[in-house]
Amino acid sequence: MPHIQLPNGVPGIAGLLLFRPDAGKALMALADAILRGPSPLSQGERELIAAYVSRRNGCFFCESTHGACAAQELEGGSKAVTASLDDAGVSSLSPKMQSLLRLAEKVRVGGKAVTSDDVAEARAHGADDVEIHDTALIAAAFCMYNRYVDGLDTWTPDDPAGYSAIAEVLLDRGYQSLLGE
Amino acid sequence: MPHIQLPNGVPGIAGLLLFRPDAGKALMALADAILRGPSPLSQGERELIAAYVSRRNGCFFCESTHGACAAQELEGGSKAVTASLDDAGVSSLSPKMQSLLRLAEKVRVGGKAVTSDDVAEARAHGADDVEIHDTALIAAAFCMYNRYVDGLDTWTPDDPAGYSAIAEVLLDRGYQSLLGE
Repeated sequence: MPHIQLPNGVPGIAGLLLFRPDAGKALMALADAILRGPSPLSQGERELIAAYVSRRNGCFFCESTHGACAAQELEGGSKAVTASLDDAGVSSLSPKMQSLLRLAEKVRVGGKAVTSDDVAEARAHGADDVEIHDTALIAAAFCMYNRYVDGLDTWTPDDPAGYSAIAEVLLDRGYQSLLGE
Repeated sequence: MPHIQLPNGVPGIAGLLLFRPDAGKALMALADAILRGPSPLSQGERELIAAYVSRRNGCFFCESTHGACAAQELEGGSKAVTASLDDAGVSSLSPKMQSLLRLAEKVRVGGKAVTSDDVAEARAHGADDVEIHDTALIAAAFCMYNRYVDGLDTWTPDDPAGYSAIAEVLLDRGYQSLLGE
């Protein structure tokens, strides 16, 4: 049961957006900017970074939602995404994407955990400043979203089909569509 | 030296806002919503939560900026804020504020670290659902801002007077004023 009184039957962050719409608006504008705005990283790659960080933070709702988005965008679909999240299939990704996921994991551990070597490695695999920046910001942002969703103990459905349905809406209409405006 | 090429001499998050203005706009709208928008918590109390979390994440830039904002807003000024951040002076805060800082620390550790008992304790000291929500969201958001600022190794000035000057501008004109629009 959520730690605060949220609308019944509204999963994850969606219930929080209804509870506090002003903050919700800014939170969803940020999600649209970092996951769907202009970037040298594809939408699928950015959703994968979000899912990867969420899994390591133990946030099943965010992992499932962004994993489903990545699966609809990336070649190989959900099988490839699930494998990448397990680390078993990371080797099927490009060396650049692998190094960006390693960078994201460092950011997840803490800002001070990122070393010049981590960044140099990503750069050696072809990542430019904007890709390094966008990876770091997505990883940092999901350290927020994950804590917001789980810190208030929001409802987490366990049916994968539900997450696929959410992902379709998000990919079609964007994160701000969750505000119902 | 920052991990990516940022404008010279622009400290902390301000350089990142210039590097990636679209994301920056959303990030500053969020800061205004959670730190300056309508809330049962005063601006000073919210800035104190931000500084408290930033200190525990080891982010000197955010601790100093939001500590300086809290000092200008709260009774007792910088002496009281510095004491609160050190835990030595936490006992001078209201029992409700103490319990909200404990809750913020749990969120900082991780979303799953927050227990029903933590929330019940805050509620027993008079915190309502909105105060519990706002505390959790501020703590979560600074887990993002701290990682963004330190993960890209932005320039961190060490002169306290500089932070007081930034705080004056922020309190007067809001976080979106950093975008220079």
